[in-house]
Formats: sequence, C-alpha cells, structure tokens
Amino acid sequence: MTAPLFDKVALIGVGLIGSSMARAMRRGGVAGQIVGYAHLPEIVERAKKAGFADSVGGDLAACVKDADLVVLAAPVGTFADIAKLIAPHLKAGAIVSDTGSVKGAVTRDVAPHLPKSLHLIPAHPIAGTEQSGPEAGFAELFDGRWCILTPPADADTAAVEKMKSFWEKLGSKVEVMDAQHHDLVLAITSHVPHLIAYNIVGTADDLETVTESEVIKFSAGGFRDFTRIAASDPTMWRDVFLNNRDAVLEMLGRFNEDLSALQRAIRWGDGDALFNLFTRTRAIRRGIIDAGQDSAAPNFGRNTDKKS
Amino acid sequence: MTAPLFDKVALIGVGLIGSSMARAMRRGGVAGQIVGYAHLPEIVERAKKAGFADSVGGDLAACVKDADLVVLAAPVGTFADIAKLIAPHLKAGAIVSDTGSVKGAVTRDVAPHLPKSLHLIPAHPIAGTEQSGPEAGFAELFDGRWCILTPPADADTAAVEKMKSFWEKLGSKVEVMDAQHHDLVLAITSHVPHLIAYNIVGTADDLETVTESEVIKFSAGGFRDFTRIAASDPTMWRDVFLNNRDAVLEMLGRFNEDLSALQRAIRWGDGDALFNLFTRTRAIRRGIIDAGQDSAAPNFGRNTDKKS
Repeated sequence: MTAPLFDKVALIGVGLIGSSMARAMRRGGVAGQIVGYAHLPEIVERAKKAGFADSVGGDLAACVKDADLVVLAAPVGTFADIAKLIAPHLKAGAIVSDTGSVKGAVTRDVAPHLPKSLHLIPAHPIAGTEQSGPEAGFAELFDGRWCILTPPADADTAAVEKMKSFWEKLGSKVEVMDAQHHDLVLAITSHVPHLIAYNIVGTADDLETVTESEVIKFSAGGFRDFTRIAASDPTMWRDVFLNNRDAVLEMLGRFNEDLSALQRAIRWGDGDALFNLFTRTRAIRRGIIDAGQDSAAPNFGRNTDKKS
Repeated sequence: MTAPLFDKVALIGVGLIGSSMARAMRRGGVAGQIVGYAHLPEIVERAKKAGFADSVGGDLAACVKDADLVVLAAPVGTFADIAKLIAPHLKAGAIVSDTGSVKGAVTRDVAPHLPKSLHLIPAHPIAGTEQSGPEAGFAELFDGRWCILTPPADADTAAVEKMKSFWEKLGSKVEVMDAQHHDLVLAITSHVPHLIAYNIVGTADDLETVTESEVIKFSAGGFRDFTRIAASDPTMWRDVFLNNRDAVLEMLGRFNEDLSALQRAIRWGDGDALFNLFTRTRAIRRGIIDAGQDSAAPNFGRNTDKKS
C-alpha cells in the first residue's frame, strides 16, 4: 500500500461538502488521519455518529494542530474569523485550502492572517446537492465533476501539484485559473441561476391570485426544477452573493437586458425572435450531455420506467 | 373485458404528447381504434414505425372521420387552421379536445369553427420531457401528474365527465377550472420558468469573457438544470408565449420587481434580506415532494449510487 498523500487532514466544517470529502478521502486512502471541526455541539455529535472522520470536535486549535492540509469547508462569510483563530496553531509548511463557491474573497479574507511559511491554495469543487448537513455527504459526490484551483500567482508549484493530485484522488477533474476569472465563470454557471431560482420561487409564494396549493400541484410544468435549486443552504448562498457582488451584478445586468428583449418580443408578437433563441439553446444542452456533466435521460431520468 | 370509453380516437399530432397518449390509451384499453395524423410525411413514417397507433396518415379528414374523440396535440398556433379544416368532417356529438399549454386561446381559436352539436372540452396534461417526436413518448408519462380541464361555462356535463374519466384512465389526476385561471397558474408554474431558463442559457451563450466550453464544463453548479428546460420544443414554446401574452407579462412583471429587490440587496450587502428569502423557498420544495410531484432524492436522483 502506498503512503497517504497527507498524514493529517483537518476539515473545518463537516456539512455536505466536508463530510463528502472525508468519505471520498477514506475511499481513496488519501489521508492518514481525518479530523473534523464543527462550531455547534449538535453538529459535532451528528458528525461523530455519521462516523466519516477519525475524530470530530469543537476545538479549532486542536483540529488544525499538526495537520498537513487544512480545508475550510464552511460558509465563505466565516473564513476571515476562522483564519485569524487558526493561524497561530498551523504547522509550518502546511497547505491551507477551502471549498468556497467564490474565490477572490478567499485570498482577500484568509491570506493576510497566514504566516509566510503556509501555502494558501484555494479550491472550489463544482459539486453538491440541495441537501445540507453531515448526513447528506457521500463519497461519490465529486466523481467526474470539476474542481477549480485558484492559486495566487506566486504560489508554490509543489503545493499546487499536491492539491491537484488530492482532488483527482477524490474523483474530480482539476482545472487551474485565476480567482477573478473563476468568479466570473461561476457567476453565470451557478450564482445567477441560483438567484433567479430563489427569486421565482419567492414570486410564486407571494401571489394572491394563485394559491400555494396550485403552485405545488401543477409544478411539473417546469417550476419544480427551480424549487430544487431554491432549497439549497441559505447561509452558504447568502455568503456567495455578498462575496461575489461585482461579478453577480455584471451577469445579472446582462440577464436583465436579454430578458427585456424577450419580454418585448412577447408583447409585440415577434415569434421569430422567440423561435430563434429557443432553437439556439438546445445546442448547449447537447454540449453538457456530451461532456458527461449531465444525464441524457429525459426529465433527469425521473421516468425510470420509460419504454420506447 | 369492459367496452372502451371511445370507439375511435383521432390524434392530430403524434409527437411526445400525442404518442404518449396513444401508448397510455393502449395500456388502459381506452379506445377501440387509435388513428394518428401528422403534417409531415417523415413524421407519418416515423410514427408508423413506432407502432403506437392503429393507423397514421397525412389526411386530416380521414383521421377525424367517425371519431368520437378528436384531440389536437399540436402546437397551439396551428389550432385555428386545424379546426377550420376538420370542422366539416367531424361526427355529430363528438368531443373535440386538445393538449395545449394555454387554454384561453383554444376556445378563442377552435370554438368559432365547430358545429353546435360538437363538444369542445379543452385539456392540459401537466406532463412532458425536454424531448420531442413520436419516438419520445411513453405510456407512463401521465401517471400521477395533473390534467386540467377547462370546459366553457355551458359545456355538456356528460362530455366533461367522460373526459375526466378518459384522463384518469391514462393515469392522471384531473382538476377542472376556467381557462383564464389556468393561464395565470401555468404562467407562473411553467411559462415564466421556461422563459427565464431559455433566457439565461442565451445570456451564457453570448458572453465574450467566458467561453462556451467553460459554461459546459462547470455547469454542475446549477446551470445544467436550466439547460434541460431550455432544450424543450421551440415551436411549442413560441406558440405558448404568443398565446398567453397577458398572463406571462403580468407574472414576468412581478418576477422582475422581486429580482430588482434582490439585486439591490446584493449591491448594498443586505444579507438578512437574502437569508430570509432563501429560507422561505425551502418550504415550497418540501410541499412539492410531499405532494408526490417530485422525487426527494438529492439532485433529482442523479447520484443513484449515494451511500449515507
């Protein structure tokens, strides 16, 4: 058996992502020892019961002590405080990483607190479900999904390679880009889609002419897909929007411009404008299926008993 | 064996919906004879090959001749022309129905052409996938889904009951409401969700700072769910927006107002406003799962190998 990539990995946060990483690390034999931290005693207990880590506790200093890799897997809004608290206890030469959905803010909030001997290699696994908590995780979450690393320009090459290898062993494909570009890409592929899903579910909930019972009963026409996304963790997503403001507002501005044009086409009965857009968008779906990033089964395979 | 509900059913249109109805009618023994019509010779051939109907052809008059039930399962924009063409060939006392996603327009476009002895009972099965064509249909499509009937106020009670029974035998649950209310409900549960899905996929496709390859690779963060909806049939959806203009514009106006408030909350860092909305929307998802209108499995069950 080969030696594990890291002797000790500290996971600060053991929700969906942290607990899935622990499970995937065990599956891959990636860590000698996995130690988890949770802020709330209740989560500590639930994580212990789930049994994916060698130990779980509520003491940050003990969690990161002697760790070769420390991963912040908590909402991005907590990163500055966590960095301040763990900095004095970090092992010299260790790698500090994270799983946040925004990346510019990580360097901004974490780097100033770290001693020079530490290596900050921010990471974002593009994977998740609408569920939260230590019980929601599973080892296969990252299989075939992309993980983006956003090392600073002067990052240690060996540390970057080690994190690349780490995520590959967890099942991911890895891409390296700068934090600013990451935040722009994710604004359109993830942040704005979540925002408009949250928004339309809120709009439907507020209607006085259509009852909530009707919205729920007749949701199979499209709405139910949005409710899945709009059931994602509220704290995590609040922090995403607060910490990727500029890119989200930029992409939202473009979305709004395009939506105004569609609105105008509907008002004036411009069927060709509608038809042309609706035809163009089919090609993108085909690209995603061909790239292995979604199933080709109709309705996401909901109708598993489909016969042709 | 009990007698079929209708001796002859004519399906005008044999795409996803029409061909699924034929398959479900066979499964339920609902029709003595099923005859399909398609406008294009290529579709006639494909439907014949798929074998779900007793006969398929390109002659409208022959298709509807002696039919006890005639179902328009084509894009809503074609209904006025179809009604004009079939009217002289309809059997006295027959029921004319449809499967259109808008209902006010059906009465407007079809009723004026029908002889008085005919019964127009518009219907909308809230079911579908992003696929199209005679091969995309399957008998289970309507199982457990709602079908809304929108009979005119003076409709024949026996005809309404017969259509209710028909859709129940196809696996649906049935609700009756007026056409105007239907169009308002569906604007928020289906039409606006489709419009914003089409819109964001178009916005992403137009970006010059983010490549199409990046959009596709990193779509697992939320965007890919929108691409499924935005892969739906372009002709059908063009006709939906052209024929439910007022309700769509009304709901879109509310959506835009709410989105502006969210945009402002992001710009000014109002985390509480974001958190409150993101918490409220989770309850709607729970309602949809409890009502049996979607699976509780995370990611729509995409991770079928999930272990806890």
